[in-house]
Amino acid sequence: MNIEERKNIRSHIRIYNSLTRKKELFQPIHKEYVGIYVCGPTVYNHLHLGNCRTFILFDLVFRYLKHLGYKVRYVRNITDVGHLENEKDNGEDKILKKSRIEGLEPMEIVQKYTISFHYILNLFNTLPPSIEPTATGHIIEQIDIIQKLIEKNLAYEKNGSIYFNMKKYRKSYSYGILSHNKTDKLFSKQKKFLEEKHCFQDFSLWKRAKKNHIMNWNSPWGKGFPGWHIECTTMSTKYLGEIFDIHGGGMDLKFPHHECELAQAVGVYNNKLANYWMHTNMLTLNDKKMSKSTGNYLSLKDLISKFRKKTFHPTIIRFFILKSHYRSILNFSNKGLIDAEKGYYRLMNGIQKLNFCYSHNNKNNSFIFNVPKWIKKCYEAINDDFNTPLLISYLFEVTHIINSSFINENDMDTIHLLKKYMNYFIFDILGIQIFEKDFLEGSSKKLKRITERLIKIRTEERKKKNWFLSDQIRNELSYIGIFLHDDKII
Amino acid sequence: MNIEERKNIRSHIRIYNSLTRKKELFQPIHKEYVGIYVCGPTVYNHLHLGNCRTFILFDLVFRYLKHLGYKVRYVRNITDVGHLENEKDNGEDKILKKSRIEGLEPMEIVQKYTISFHYILNLFNTLPPSIEPTATGHIIEQIDIIQKLIEKNLAYEKNGSIYFNMKKYRKSYSYGILSHNKTDKLFSKQKKFLEEKHCFQDFSLWKRAKKNHIMNWNSPWGKGFPGWHIECTTMSTKYLGEIFDIHGGGMDLKFPHHECELAQAVGVYNNKLANYWMHTNMLTLNDKKMSKSTGNYLSLKDLISKFRKKTFHPTIIRFFILKSHYRSILNFSNKGLIDAEKGYYRLMNGIQKLNFCYSHNNKNNSFIFNVPKWIKKCYEAINDDFNTPLLISYLFEVTHIINSSFINENDMDTIHLLKKYMNYFIFDILGIQIFEKDFLEGSSKKLKRITERLIKIRTEERKKKNWFLSDQIRNELSYIGIFLHDDKII
Repeated sequence: MNIEERKNIRSHIRIYNSLTRKKELFQPIHKEYVGIYVCGPTVYNHLHLGNCRTFILFDLVFRYLKHLGYKVRYVRNITDVGHLENEKDNGEDKILKKSRIEGLEPMEIVQKYTISFHYILNLFNTLPPSIEPTATGHIIEQIDIIQKLIEKNLAYEKNGSIYFNMKKYRKSYSYGILSHNKTDKLFSKQKKFLEEKHCFQDFSLWKRAKKNHIMNWNSPWGKGFPGWHIECTTMSTKYLGEIFDIHGGGMDLKFPHHECELAQAVGVYNNKLANYWMHTNMLTLNDKKMSKSTGNYLSLKDLISKFRKKTFHPTIIRFFILKSHYRSILNFSNKGLIDAEKGYYRLMNGIQKLNFCYSHNNKNNSFIFNVPKWIKKCYEAINDDFNTPLLISYLFEVTHIINSSFINENDMDTIHLLKKYMNYFIFDILGIQIFEKDFLEGSSKKLKRITERLIKIRTEERKKKNWFLSDQIRNELSYIGIFLHDDKII
Repeated sequence: MNIEERKNIRSHIRIYNSLTRKKELFQPIHKEYVGIYVCGPTVYNHLHLGNCRTFILFDLVFRYLKHLGYKVRYVRNITDVGHLENEKDNGEDKILKKSRIEGLEPMEIVQKYTISFHYILNLFNTLPPSIEPTATGHIIEQIDIIQKLIEKNLAYEKNGSIYFNMKKYRKSYSYGILSHNKTDKLFSKQKKFLEEKHCFQDFSLWKRAKKNHIMNWNSPWGKGFPGWHIECTTMSTKYLGEIFDIHGGGMDLKFPHHECELAQAVGVYNNKLANYWMHTNMLTLNDKKMSKSTGNYLSLKDLISKFRKKTFHPTIIRFFILKSHYRSILNFSNKGLIDAEKGYYRLMNGIQKLNFCYSHNNKNNSFIFNVPKWIKKCYEAINDDFNTPLLISYLFEVTHIINSSFINENDMDTIHLLKKYMNYFIFDILGIQIFEKDFLEGSSKKLKRITERLIKIRTEERKKKNWFLSDQIRNELSYIGIFLHDDKII
């Protein structure tokens, strides 16, 4: 693909924008650059599969834009302070709570679950983001933005805490454009939750640290810690500018997290933070929402565990996830995974056959397929709001044709072209990996099995005094480091 | 090992303390807890093997103390700002310089080389530290300490930069106790390097950011960034307290980095920062210091590269490093690595024989070896300032005996005990890994080889019309997923 072709494909990307509820043509602010911000995990627990969907989708977006030659700066944060257990009533900090339960320093909790997060995403073959800022690493910058909000009268201080002034904000701007939620949904209206705030809907930007609150920092208002929402407004704009291209996250973050992020940004910069807001839909299990509290959830560990009857390689799970469009609800089921696995092998066999054809171009029936047209269709699919299920259906379509065709020497240019784009779509863009069928078993096990059987065959042959063959087998085994010492045959 | 035995072993650990230049009995501040701080990398480049020695040694220390039942908090930082290219003349920030060269945002450089750092240490089987704080994540805390130094008149402000007041400090304390260096070695005495400082030996705690210096933070003195030394004083004391147990690092950090860290801590807390200061010695290559600037260095990539005649598994390199005492100069050579590899296989064969004996206790010569005495000797070796070469020599000693003995059923208790402690020393404490001989080649290659040979044998047998055997081989292959379709024999 030359530069011109790339640019042509680029100019047709359309993204569903949660802000406008429409598919819009994607036009980055700076021609060759794209800035993406995705809300990362709060590192107080192992990721479950529901969370993974979001990170896999944005990995695809990252890969695709890079594939098209954009210079992409992909920022995905780590929330290591300020995310409260129950937002509606200002519950305990999630990290602090976990540190109490596990008897560790909060930053030990952060370290433990950050490592787990990276480990899991690595199994899914997601690329690391360009920058991975932490909330505790940006306290000064958060204080800075809060001060700007105070200057604009959009925030006020009370006993060392700072609150967003929703009344004032709504005089100039509207709240809830992303989620169509009203501010009265923000907090419980029980009087005890009003505390020191002017109004129920004022959310906290900075909280005064109580005596035993060990995660705290100096600020102009005394010791305290930031609110969850201000973190993302701060980190995204620090690395991507006051307005950038794409802001992403799970649908459950739309309200109140993204609404509040947006309100803060509108307040400070009088701008909409990001031009395109993308949200991934839910993952359900047995058609119910995955949730830890109800026990209706799956972790990756569950799916690749040896104790499960049927286990799946992480790339199968990735493939399964991408077989649905990110804005549809996706139900996790064994059947769905088994289908995905079958589909995966079909694709891999197709790839293998393509490779085979290429090196043994001695068949004689012609391969009739319009490859350039097919390539165009594939790009159109991804360009249409990352329609991966459609793309995958095209991949199956061509695989079917490959498997039922013979390749002529005259077709080699076409085959070469097809191979190239199959590789682009499957490996570079969808991020699917080749794995050995025995991922969970290992080549070493296969090797063990076959050597055991061989030794058995050899023993039989020796009994028959077939020395030539038995010596041959012994020699073969010695090549791979297995040395047999024969006892006398009884 | 029961609790009493553990506590007994613990009470005999002796550590060479760079501060006193003596081996001292190790007594942690809090009976059951140990706090360790190790200076981590400045993430502007890939690690070379010289750096790895330090991290492998402290991994051993971490593992050993945990093995003895201590609750260890191991803090190893990431320096992502403030480390200057040429300290003596206040050169450019290393991260900033690299970001200029690679055309990336400084935090993109940090992300790239942090990932590389973790990847390399993971190959060496080092455990992640308990907390891995970043310098940019602790700016507020650094400002806090600097303010305390200013209050004590041990630092002064000049044009938005803060310098350590060495004259004042030396009136009350002495500088250079770790390295026996004098302060006049700190900086070039050319007038241009005096700049705005009162004296040449005053080092910077905070630097005013020039206009184009994009890594900067708000401070009481305007926009700026921290000095390298203040970072470690800050992060260590934040997570381990004003005084903690062990401070470690490479010998090249002793001066000026650790001296300045120490001076800052003495100034603020009037305490020696850590009770035990440990320094790892140099790694040389061809008996010359490893150094990137002279080209006399090796990376891990070099050693495991496919393009090298002889490659080594990272665990062999780890074993090679631990075969020398950490306070000796260690010369890297192919010969040394080959020796280490041979030694490694000897140990592994010993382990294998132990396992074999255990499950096939049908031999009849007795195994005479005083295992409890041997265990005691091994602990004494590690307890003597982590004398890993001595420990390893004991492991070889017992391996020799294992390999030349037969095991009687009556010996099984002894063998069981020996196995247990061999596992402790080799895997848990030294952190050595079992790897297949064909790490760089893979079981899959072996498998490929043997299946190819088998198919050949089968073809021969078919020519001889030995249908029984050829069918048998075909069946065996089908079990491991290889299906043969026979053509007619010509």
